Amino acid sequence: MKQDSGIDVTLLPSSDPSAWASILLEALPYIQKFMGKCVVVKYGGNVLGDSVDSNEEIDAELDSFAEDIVLLHSVGILPVIVHGGGPQIDEWLNRIGKVSAFSNGLRVTDAETLEVVKMVLLGKLNPSIVQAINRHGDKGVGVSGLDSSLIVATKAKGDIGFVGDIESVNPEIILSILKDGLIPVVATIGADSQGQGYNINADFGAAELAVAIGAEKLVYMTNVEGVRGKFDDPTSLIQRMQPGELENLLGSDTIQGGMRPKLQSALSASKNGVSSVHILDGRIPHAILLEMLTDRGIGTMITEEVVEK
Amino acid sequence: MKQDSGIDVTLLPSSDPSAWASILLEALPYIQKFMGKCVVVKYGGNVLGDSVDSNEEIDAELDSFAEDIVLLHSVGILPVIVHGGGPQIDEWLNRIGKVSAFSNGLRVTDAETLEVVKMVLLGKLNPSIVQAINRHGDKGVGVSGLDSSLIVATKAKGDIGFVGDIESVNPEIILSILKDGLIPVVATIGADSQGQGYNINADFGAAELAVAIGAEKLVYMTNVEGVRGKFDDPTSLIQRMQPGELENLLGSDTIQGGMRPKLQSALSASKNGVSSVHILDGRIPHAILLEMLTDRGIGTMITEEVVEK
Amino acid sequence: MKQDSGIDVTLLPSSDPSAWASILLEALPYIQKFMGKCVVVKYGGNVLGDSVDSNEEIDAELDSFAEDIVLLHSVGILPVIVHGGGPQIDEWLNRIGKVSAFSNGLRVTDAETLEVVKMVLLGKLNPSIVQAINRHGDKGVGVSGLDSSLIVATKAKGDIGFVGDIESVNPEIILSILKDGLIPVVATIGADSQGQGYNINADFGAAELAVAIGAEKLVYMTNVEGVRGKFDDPTSLIQRMQPGELENLLGSDTIQGGMRPKLQSALSASKNGVSSVHILDGRIPHAILLEMLTDRGIGTMITEEVVEK
Amino acid sequence: MKQDSGIDVTLLPSSDPSAWASILLEALPYIQKFMGKCVVVKYGGNVLGDSVDSNEEIDAELDSFAEDIVLLHSVGILPVIVHGGGPQIDEWLNRIGKVSAFSNGLRVTDAETLEVVKMVLLGKLNPSIVQAINRHGDKGVGVSGLDSSLIVATKAKGDIGFVGDIESVNPEIILSILKDGLIPVVATIGADSQGQGYNINADFGAAELAVAIGAEKLVYMTNVEGVRGKFDDPTSLIQRMQPGELENLLGSDTIQGGMRPKLQSALSASKNGVSSVHILDGRIPHAILLEMLTDRGIGTMITEEVVEK
Amino acid sequence: MKQDSGIDVTLLPSSDPSAWASILLEALPYIQKFMGKCVVVKYGGNVLGDSVDSNEEIDAELDSFAEDIVLLHSVGILPVIVHGGGPQIDEWLNRIGKVSAFSNGLRVTDAETLEVVKMVLLGKLNPSIVQAINRHGDKGVGVSGLDSSLIVATKAKGDIGFVGDIESVNPEIILSILKDGLIPVVATIGADSQGQGYNINADFGAAELAVAIGAEKLVYMTNVEGVRGKFDDPTSLIQRMQPGELENLLGSDTIQGGMRPKLQSALSASKNGVSSVHILDGRIPHAILLEMLTDRGIGTMITEEVVEK
Amino acid sequence: MKQDSGIDVTLLPSSDPSAWASILLEALPYIQKFMGKCVVVKYGGNVLGDSVDSNEEIDAELDSFAEDIVLLHSVGILPVIVHGGGPQIDEWLNRIGKVSAFSNGLRVTDAETLEVVKMVLLGKLNPSIVQAINRHGDKGVGVSGLDSSLIVATKAKGDIGFVGDIESVNPEIILSILKDGLIPVVATIGADSQGQGYNINADFGAAELAVAIGAEKLVYMTNVEGVRGKFDDPTSLIQRMQPGELENLLGSDTIQGGMRPKLQSALSASKNGVSSVHILDGRIPHAILLEMLTDRGIGTMITEEVVEK
Repeated sequence: MKQDSGIDVTLLPSSDPSAWASILLEALPYIQKFMGKCVVVKYGGNVLGDSVDSNEEIDAELDSFAEDIVLLHSVGILPVIVHGGGPQIDEWLNRIGKVSAFSNGLRVTDAETLEVVKMVLLGKLNPSIVQAINRHGDKGVGVSGLDSSLIVATKAKGDIGFVGDIESVNPEIILSILKDGLIPVVATIGADSQGQGYNINADFGAAELAVAIGAEKLVYMTNVEGVRGKFDDPTSLIQRMQPGELENLLGSDTIQGGMRPKLQSALSASKNGVSSVHILDGRIPHAILLEMLTDRGIGTMITEEVVEK
Repeated sequence: MKQDSGIDVTLLPSSDPSAWASILLEALPYIQKFMGKCVVVKYGGNVLGDSVDSNEEIDAELDSFAEDIVLLHSVGILPVIVHGGGPQIDEWLNRIGKVSAFSNGLRVTDAETLEVVKMVLLGKLNPSIVQAINRHGDKGVGVSGLDSSLIVATKAKGDIGFVGDIESVNPEIILSILKDGLIPVVATIGADSQGQGYNINADFGAAELAVAIGAEKLVYMTNVEGVRGKFDDPTSLIQRMQPGELENLLGSDTIQGGMRPKLQSALSASKNGVSSVHILDGRIPHAILLEMLTDRGIGTMITEEVVEK
Repeated sequence: MKQDSGIDVTLLPSSDPSAWASILLEALPYIQKFMGKCVVVKYGGNVLGDSVDSNEEIDAELDSFAEDIVLLHSVGILPVIVHGGGPQIDEWLNRIGKVSAFSNGLRVTDAETLEVVKMVLLGKLNPSIVQAINRHGDKGVGVSGLDSSLIVATKAKGDIGFVGDIESVNPEIILSILKDGLIPVVATIGADSQGQGYNINADFGAAELAVAIGAEKLVYMTNVEGVRGKFDDPTSLIQRMQPGELENLLGSDTIQGGMRPKLQSALSASKNGVSSVHILDGRIPHAILLEMLTDRGIGTMITEEVVEK
Repeated sequence: MKQDSGIDVTLLPSSDPSAWASILLEALPYIQKFMGKCVVVKYGGNVLGDSVDSNEEIDAELDSFAEDIVLLHSVGILPVIVHGGGPQIDEWLNRIGKVSAFSNGLRVTDAETLEVVKMVLLGKLNPSIVQAINRHGDKGVGVSGLDSSLIVATKAKGDIGFVGDIESVNPEIILSILKDGLIPVVATIGADSQGQGYNINADFGAAELAVAIGAEKLVYMTNVEGVRGKFDDPTSLIQRMQPGELENLLGSDTIQGGMRPKLQSALSASKNGVSSVHILDGRIPHAILLEMLTDRGIGTMITEEVVEK
Repeated sequence: MKQDSGIDVTLLPSSDPSAWASILLEALPYIQKFMGKCVVVKYGGNVLGDSVDSNEEIDAELDSFAEDIVLLHSVGILPVIVHGGGPQIDEWLNRIGKVSAFSNGLRVTDAETLEVVKMVLLGKLNPSIVQAINRHGDKGVGVSGLDSSLIVATKAKGDIGFVGDIESVNPEIILSILKDGLIPVVATIGADSQGQGYNINADFGAAELAVAIGAEKLVYMTNVEGVRGKFDDPTSLIQRMQPGELENLLGSDTIQGGMRPKLQSALSASKNGVSSVHILDGRIPHAILLEMLTDRGIGTMITEEVVEK
Repeated sequence: MKQDSGIDVTLLPSSDPSAWASILLEALPYIQKFMGKCVVVKYGGNVLGDSVDSNEEIDAELDSFAEDIVLLHSVGILPVIVHGGGPQIDEWLNRIGKVSAFSNGLRVTDAETLEVVKMVLLGKLNPSIVQAINRHGDKGVGVSGLDSSLIVATKAKGDIGFVGDIESVNPEIILSILKDGLIPVVATIGADSQGQGYNINADFGAAELAVAIGAEKLVYMTNVEGVRGKFDDPTSLIQRMQPGELENLLGSDTIQGGMRPKLQSALSASKNGVSSVHILDGRIPHAILLEMLTDRGIGTMITEEVVEK
């Protein structure tokens, strides 16, 4: 397993045991700190590759991510994965010749569109992640927001069809899966008490779920390097913010596009008990591992804590 | 709830409490007998209606079936639902212009076909059943054979693509869901240890699962009235068979079409510890309730037991 | 067992499965509602027949009652039986030539009378009920108010000998018997801390016990059809009362004779947490079953609830 | 409590703490040895006085016995009392003018006689013992062989009516009462599966119960000083016997009268796992205490053990 | 075992069973009272003899004390032993030619002195007591205040080196040892959070530990007969005091020498929840047994209780 | 804490996250493998520095070792430390002017010598290790072989005094300490059933303890680099041996001095269920960490396993 992790071994400090010991001495206290704690990881549709059922090679990035998650789990940390799937939904709507109407940037979701959303999220992406995890040890379990009414939804305002707001979260099924030593992989489809399904924004789903299960950490895996102080300046990366600072930032027009709802959900989680929220660059190999087990910061961290990391 | 069950109340023996008492006296010992026991119910794709996400009425038959299941569960019986989805898969393959090749009656399942199979089963039918159950009390949980490697599969013989045989069943996740007081709804997609997915026949999946969880009963809900002694004679219904008799029957050419693999899986379950296997007519309203809680037989029962029902 | 329940099968709606299903659909939610809940059933001396030890036939009514209790218990409801024995005590006092003096309608209970009361209740009637229950499954356990000081009594006011008022109830032994999956049958003899025994009114004993164990329901099985609005008008049966209405009724002189203390104890239970108290006609076959598992009311129900049944 | 134990304090070795310490050092290892172990004590009808419900003084001997039992129980020993009641049954049969017929020394027990037997044992003597125990702490619980079918009986051979032989013992209820920290007081009425009651010899009942619950010790409290080697020689007391020796003794005609069935039951218990069986003189104050907690032997002990006491 | 307890058997009241019964009747309620309760016994260095590792005879007094402790433990009482060691420390300091400086009666404890203190307490006396206990049944466990930071200490005021005051007690390890059915033997060495060790006064250690574990009783085994009302009058022994009275006594100059800190710690324990504190004469054979299991008082008892003993 | 680990940070591969990730990917599977497993670490007297009670600096090597142990424990591995103390015993014997006699290389241990052995091991070295561990988190618990008779010993052959062989090990106390989340530190003093103490070789003690608690690993921390194939050739280090090879090696005269009994005990552990036994060079900083959590071998490993490390 280790020889396949795609790392140039000539870079390793093999001649110096002290360097190795130093890294272990750094990592072990983090393992202890997060042992038995829940970490919700939002894995964006942008970083999700093609299905493992194709006769092509297994998607290497998804496989590497799955390996990291399984390793964290193996040392007692409790990861919960929440995933999106925007690009893949677009592709399938296109395939059946469906043209989406938009209203204020939100896709108008009629019954047929909702059917495709469910099929892509629950029938294609969710099992792909589960299968990738299971290649490293049979621990992945697919969950939808429908299961034992995990996500209870109501129709969102506006005439945009079956788009839902989260009314409440019943986290028992996630806690039970964690207690069984398994790794839940969640697709954020919700339903109301009449059984009508709704499409739910995955960033908000991840945040609400993190709050409901009392997660220690919420990590957004994205395809940017973090939050910038200036929209178009890559060198303006903010490494650490307190929730109050984030609130101010959201009050300005610095944050735009898809980053805005992401940071709104991050702020909400941060204010409701999640100790630290992270915007990570999922393109860095083993980003989640480096973030969780080393003193080095990657991307942006939002936390009330003053001293640590 | 009760007033909506669609029964003509003028038929009720309301003037005679003795008749009511008699039915209760008959039902209660069955409740006691099956309390805490698992019952696997195979719900065929033929009886599954359209998605509840459509803006049409909720499918009435699925809703009635879901109510029965929830009531049985409410008195301590542990139902596990396994579903198929042949007609709905055909419809979607057709929709994207995919033409299936067949080999010995089995559909050649290339990667694209498998993708559609997963999307229909996991993304469309499975959540429909879960949503129908949850209309009666938040207990439904969708499960695929991928979850924590519930169904480990290998490629079936022949050059027919990603059609799988069941290698082993890891029933822990089903038992855990039952222990949590929930109702599992299972789609029979499997995977091998490399994470490659396979389509699995739902009748065989139901039988193997029933054996693996130690089910007391396995019920096939079909659209025929049971097993006939003569293929084309509706009056030749066999009400009760021992496994040996079924084996003989399968040795003859009386059993044809889709009933043959169904009865082969029934025989396998019957020989591996499932006390009774039933072929029920799912078109009879509340068929599962009548079968389980009254002395009246419906359809065909396969059992070693000599005396009872 | 079922064929012996003494019901004319020609009355059964055997030709119509819908009618059967309807009754089951009605009963199952009640079973769920009462599962794990305690129901105290006061079984009056008037309906208790002769001992099963005689070489005559087993008393059919007691046997039918015992069967109902065992069936309710078999589906998870927790019945506790409390019994009286007035007529049988009279008979035995008469047999040994003892003439009772009365004071304000209460029998003056000297030491010799108390001895006979104990012998009849504990030595004759209580074991008869236990034996009848055990014919249907070994679950009956005789309990007296003396056992681990279940009923702590003090001497009642007036010069009437060993008649006791209930000072406190120690319900642990009843709860322990229920937890062991058994059915307690209680005779209401009490004692004070010096070990002096007292005769205790069984209606009040049943009410205090129902309160002490947190019973959901208290049912008085009597030989009248319920509470009447007018003393001598059988058509004036009151089907449902709130405790306040009962209190008003007791303030008038409508309620007379043995019904008055019975309703006083019913009122007390109703005001101290027992959700519903019932006065049932024990002469109706399977009255307890019909009351608990159907929508039909039998006799009179006292409850704060407004909507249900 | 202590000052009332009726002992002449001038006899006490109060001037010598060493003597006190010596007695404690002797007793403590016995307490440890029997802690958590069951001891069945057969308390004969001969030593049972009149009812405590009479307005006379509480029976002093029963009270002293009850105190000993409660003290043993308070230090973790688990006593189970089994009682007879021959003299009291005779008295009540006489009172209602019933004349018993006898056959081979056994009373012909018709239905009416059985009714009186049950009333005296279950309604008079059993509650008297329970009440005496409860004067010292609310731990006594009356049990009949009918309760949850503790004693399953069959009709004894011969035409002697409702006299029963023990077919099997279901000791769960006794074990449950002990686990609840209570003291069972058992009357040996049994029943068959049809609910027919039978009178059971209490000596045999005690022995079978001791075997069924895995008792460490079985003690018969009698009104003789123990087993004699010669029938009419009080100086021939046998202090200790092995089961084999007892079997030989029973083969001779030395043992006569009521002692014969008592010793037969003792032999049966001894051969079926009860470590020691004792025939004690219940007339010695605190006999059970001295037997269990000192090195001094009282009466006769039957045991396989060679060395101890 | 019993024959070796060194008691002149001719003193025993063997001819009178009533006397024996009386002593047992007296002891049993005390066993019940203290069953499951913790009793901290401070065993002073003055009464500790030479090591059992010498080739001389086992120290008889330590052995007798150990036997008493094991017997109390065997009947369910939970003893915790705390020991001192002043004389033995003096002896060893002398042996290596170390001269102690004193300041206000407290020994100035430099690093070398602390090393000897630890070696004598932890390496010599503590294992001697453990070994003596284990001669009677393998239950002794040596514990130092260092173990899992049982005693957290700070440097005492004044320039007297490594003498410590108790800052806090973490009693979990003691409670865990007791739960395992073992007998902790505690040496009162403490440490601060930097790992620096300190010598702690054993009387105060015993008192703080008794409070921390919720002990019922704290017993100081000394070599005097108890607390005297007048310093030099042996007949002025105070048998019983309330904490308030002790406080007054400590306000006067009646209490001098080592008895003063002992009584100050006793007062502290008494005011913080320890029901009774005792100053016993450890020279009386089996003093702890007589104190705990008889009505006779030995030495001085400090308690808020008014009536008992 | 991390900044104090004494490692030159300029050596760290800080510019390359891949290298860090690689080391973590290597370590995590080992953490998972050893999680919940026991590892016995024999810490030799040679590497034990002076007492932390001195007013000098804390011994840096002991502190570093303690930190490693606490870190391993913090991630779920269960270390048990066993220590020796030869040099320190020599020093103290010398201090009191005691001259040891030797017989076949073993010190003749008279009573006075044994006293010093116990004082040094139990009173000086054991608490030093406990204090060092507690500087990193209050988990250390000192244990002697006397505690609850952990090590039962008999007198070794020959006329060499109180030197003991191990007769049996009662590991319950060690398992209980581990279950409480604490780290046992064991000194190998044993005793026989009469309470006579014996000095036990610590290498053998560690091996027997490892077997008794079912340890996964046994590590000897020494001051040599491992086992050499040729006695005087440092380049002949054997990195891996199977038990059979070790047995052969011990049959030759290659192994001499103190390494011989060490390897004999290693062989014994290896043959009795300890998966791997290691001879490590304790002078390498963080040797235990590198050995347990990296693919790199340090010193010599004895194992039956063929493939791994």
